[in-house]
Amino acid sequence: MPELRKDPIIGRWVIIATERARRPGNFVHSNDLSWDDPHISPCPYCQHLQTPLYWATLNRPSQGPHDWDVCVTSHETPILNMQGSFERRGYGLYDVIDGYGTHEVVVETKEHIANMADLSEDQIRLVLETYAHRINELEKNSHLQYVLAYKNYGISAGSRKIGHARSHIIAAPVNPRRIKDKLMGAKKYFGYHDRCVYCDLIHTELDQKKRIIFETEHFVALTPFAARFLFEVWILPKKHHCDFYKGLLGSQHDLAKMLKKVLMKIELGLGDPAYNFVIHTAPFRRSDFSGNRFRTIEEDYHWHIEILPRLTTVAGFEKGTGFYICSVPPEAMTEYLGKF
Amino acid sequence: MPELRKDPIIGRWVIIATERARRPGNFVHSNDLSWDDPHISPCPYCQHLQTPLYWATLNRPSQGPHDWDVCVTSHETPILNMQGSFERRGYGLYDVIDGYGTHEVVVETKEHIANMADLSEDQIRLVLETYAHRINELEKNSHLQYVLAYKNYGISAGSRKIGHARSHIIAAPVNPRRIKDKLMGAKKYFGYHDRCVYCDLIHTELDQKKRIIFETEHFVALTPFAARFLFEVWILPKKHHCDFYKGLLGSQHDLAKMLKKVLMKIELGLGDPAYNFVIHTAPFRRSDFSGNRFRTIEEDYHWHIEILPRLTTVAGFEKGTGFYICSVPPEAMTEYLGKF
Repeated sequence: MPELRKDPIIGRWVIIATERARRPGNFVHSNDLSWDDPHISPCPYCQHLQTPLYWATLNRPSQGPHDWDVCVTSHETPILNMQGSFERRGYGLYDVIDGYGTHEVVVETKEHIANMADLSEDQIRLVLETYAHRINELEKNSHLQYVLAYKNYGISAGSRKIGHARSHIIAAPVNPRRIKDKLMGAKKYFGYHDRCVYCDLIHTELDQKKRIIFETEHFVALTPFAARFLFEVWILPKKHHCDFYKGLLGSQHDLAKMLKKVLMKIELGLGDPAYNFVIHTAPFRRSDFSGNRFRTIEEDYHWHIEILPRLTTVAGFEKGTGFYICSVPPEAMTEYLGKF
Repeated sequence: MPELRKDPIIGRWVIIATERARRPGNFVHSNDLSWDDPHISPCPYCQHLQTPLYWATLNRPSQGPHDWDVCVTSHETPILNMQGSFERRGYGLYDVIDGYGTHEVVVETKEHIANMADLSEDQIRLVLETYAHRINELEKNSHLQYVLAYKNYGISAGSRKIGHARSHIIAAPVNPRRIKDKLMGAKKYFGYHDRCVYCDLIHTELDQKKRIIFETEHFVALTPFAARFLFEVWILPKKHHCDFYKGLLGSQHDLAKMLKKVLMKIELGLGDPAYNFVIHTAPFRRSDFSGNRFRTIEEDYHWHIEILPRLTTVAGFEKGTGFYICSVPPEAMTEYLGKF
């Protein structure tokens, strides 16, 4: 019997098509990760980089901008830049802002390694600390509303053919749609229950033990009850905090361990597929889109990470309606990933 | 200068990345439409079909169920079916419904033709009338909330390797997320302006003439101001109606002409790419998700068609945030499609 399940945060229904279900192992496939496009060879991230915006070293002082283990540079063709004005203009029905913002690349290692899963825990921890540092820096620009740290791994996840682990940090003068939806959903839940929906979700999941993939001291990794994508994984901090930067303090080793574990399960269990991950943190300026201050945002929002493997094509039905079909029950995904 | 543009209906911001822009013609590519997978040959839609749910003929009476020009069958592995219960159940935090609903396939022609663009106007008109007929029939089941008629053309649009034009009709017991967003956006606009946002959009666009691709007596085709996808096209009826079934009456010839024109522009101008289209009609039961009746839905919602060519990959940034990047300005898309 197929099932419709509702995401408890944003109220989106998902079809869990159990009758069409393929066994999770059927999604193992050799990836088309034919890295190292000769057109962009040699690898631009193995070369001498322009003076980075920021750099960090592991367990030793840096000798200068050339001496780094993780570094951050401006994107060579940025999606947003600081040249325009950040002011909104109206054209009758329409609103426009110049593409004001920043677009940075986090080079996750000096070595030519493609998948973050294959970095050491320490190296991943340094990448996480680098995200946190840059997010905190960008927050100081009062014209920026939201910052997004994310990764595209593999061509079908939107990456270019460069087999060198890196991620992106984009800061924008507006709050993206899905972030607004999550904030509004969390706010509504808090208004009714006087509790954070994510905290309740963590308690429910730890109690039911059906969708927990892995647990550490500070984090829990699970497949969401109403998963949109095959092997979608959320990593949630057990301790409530709305903000990645502040929430990470003191638990970065633990998150690095968790992230490596989950990414390795995906790499080994699913045949090294393309994937995206996205860090969901609260907006910088905590006002909602009608201009009211989100007074409770610290209480009702809960930062987290979404990992989205790219195993199937999103069809017209999903694109047209935001109504997703997932052909494996999340409980079976958890069970499968548990083996790796 | 890149630009951020806001969709006037649901308030979603899109980045129009003009600086990264490629010339529209660069998106012409020979399609991977290697139809006719030997594993599903001979074509199941060229064969004798089980007695159809519905069938229609062009300009002649039908001699029986085998004699059709367009027919509707149940999907052999339906996403939703009528076997479960349509009642909602709660599991603590979570809501579930059995996968109650219907999943039908509209076989658009007896001939083995892949792209709807290559059907005659009359044949397309018969397909549109068939959608309308089935939608009207499904509305009679009071447990169904929403019906979606859509098409996946090409592998990367989520179709299987069968080069035979067909579309899908899915009816569900809940309203999908994006439909709710559109309804709420249209309602909010009407509440403030006492006018339909889509009607205002049509007047603005016909006045500005920057994004109009084609106009007929009853319809207008345009690239939306805040397009999410390359060569995204909306077809809007000039006459206000919330409902596809009722709105189509009397203008089906005109819509067939419009749809063929637009699909041919996409086929010729962009090298026969994969695409999806989706008919956006109002929900059957006109209550919002908090249970209040949408009293004004007939006034504030406006049915329309979205056509979404599949020319690029949606990356982590878009997936994680619902914040899209479009690398060609909509005005340039319109200009380019105007040549075909």
